[in-house]
Amino acid sequence: MKLKKNERRQAIQQAIENNPFITDNELCEMFQVSIQTIRLDRTHLNIPELRKRVKLVAEHNYDQIKSIEANEIIGDLVQLKPNDTATSMIEITSDSVFSKSQIARGHVLFAQANSLCVALIHNPTVLTQESDVKFLDKVKLNDTVKAVANVINQTNKHYLIEVNSYVKDKLVFNGKFKMFYISEDELNG
Amino acid sequence: MKLKKNERRQAIQQAIENNPFITDNELCEMFQVSIQTIRLDRTHLNIPELRKRVKLVAEHNYDQIKSIEANEIIGDLVQLKPNDTATSMIEITSDSVFSKSQIARGHVLFAQANSLCVALIHNPTVLTQESDVKFLDKVKLNDTVKAVANVINQTNKHYLIEVNSYVKDKLVFNGKFKMFYISEDELNG
Repeated sequence: MKLKKNERRQAIQQAIENNPFITDNELCEMFQVSIQTIRLDRTHLNIPELRKRVKLVAEHNYDQIKSIEANEIIGDLVQLKPNDTATSMIEITSDSVFSKSQIARGHVLFAQANSLCVALIHNPTVLTQESDVKFLDKVKLNDTVKAVANVINQTNKHYLIEVNSYVKDKLVFNGKFKMFYISEDELNG
Repeated sequence: MKLKKNERRQAIQQAIENNPFITDNELCEMFQVSIQTIRLDRTHLNIPELRKRVKLVAEHNYDQIKSIEANEIIGDLVQLKPNDTATSMIEITSDSVFSKSQIARGHVLFAQANSLCVALIHNPTVLTQESDVKFLDKVKLNDTVKAVANVINQTNKHYLIEVNSYVKDKLVFNGKFKMFYISEDELNG
């Protein structure tokens, strides 16, 4: 059943509070209205578009990173607990798809996941040793991909990190990354 | 023993004919002269710099590719035998390294290898299913990376491709990529 305008706006506000990273498309489906209606509702509620909400959240996380410059992360870092978990979001633009098929290129999902692993480790120089990745479903132009990284094992200077990436609730990518850090001496030696 | 100027120039010309992708740095080492000397010798011999030689060779290969637009390949395609082998070269610029360590980012080597696998398969829509990659040695700013891809198994619509990437003769990256192609129907379905 469709809600009346004011009820719907209240419900949209609540939905975005519950999940700041909900897309306009997901809101469309949730409230069975057009994307134009969702945009008007957001404007009325003074809630910025997803991309801006993501950037606002990401800015708070960049202070915590030791290993990488904020602008070197592929995607926006929306959650970070150093040496434990991290989450980033990326919107698939026309630069990131094959022009013929409009399907996202594998290395874009790899880059999002791999740079998230680097950002996650609280050390100045973090490198990748090995990685096993699976591309589980096609990602398309304009999709928003959420990558969630978890440290699953740590020994000495090595970290094993698992990354799962989603479009909405659908798992599209899984990667295991063996990462390590090196000291200044090792870097220059 | 150092060669006299004319002997050296003749020898440089021969070395570049034997291996058109030899770098100026490798020529320096080979002939024990400075990089300025090598550049002057090349200018005298009317041999363009490596980057231009690579681009010239790459242009001849782009007609043979079905799966990807030439400008979508990460690196320059210097050799292609469709469904069999392919080689690309990339120069590591400041965009491709971590600003702190000047070490090449993992996803750049991954992207070179993965897009080479796509270019190699003679079909309009080629996607990646799985990939196991190992980063075997640090790649640095201004290094030239040569990636060599070989199809090692093919069944139905699936290809298993191995990529080995080198800086000079040193193996820096190994990847196994499971690739597959899909028909127009599957793409739109």
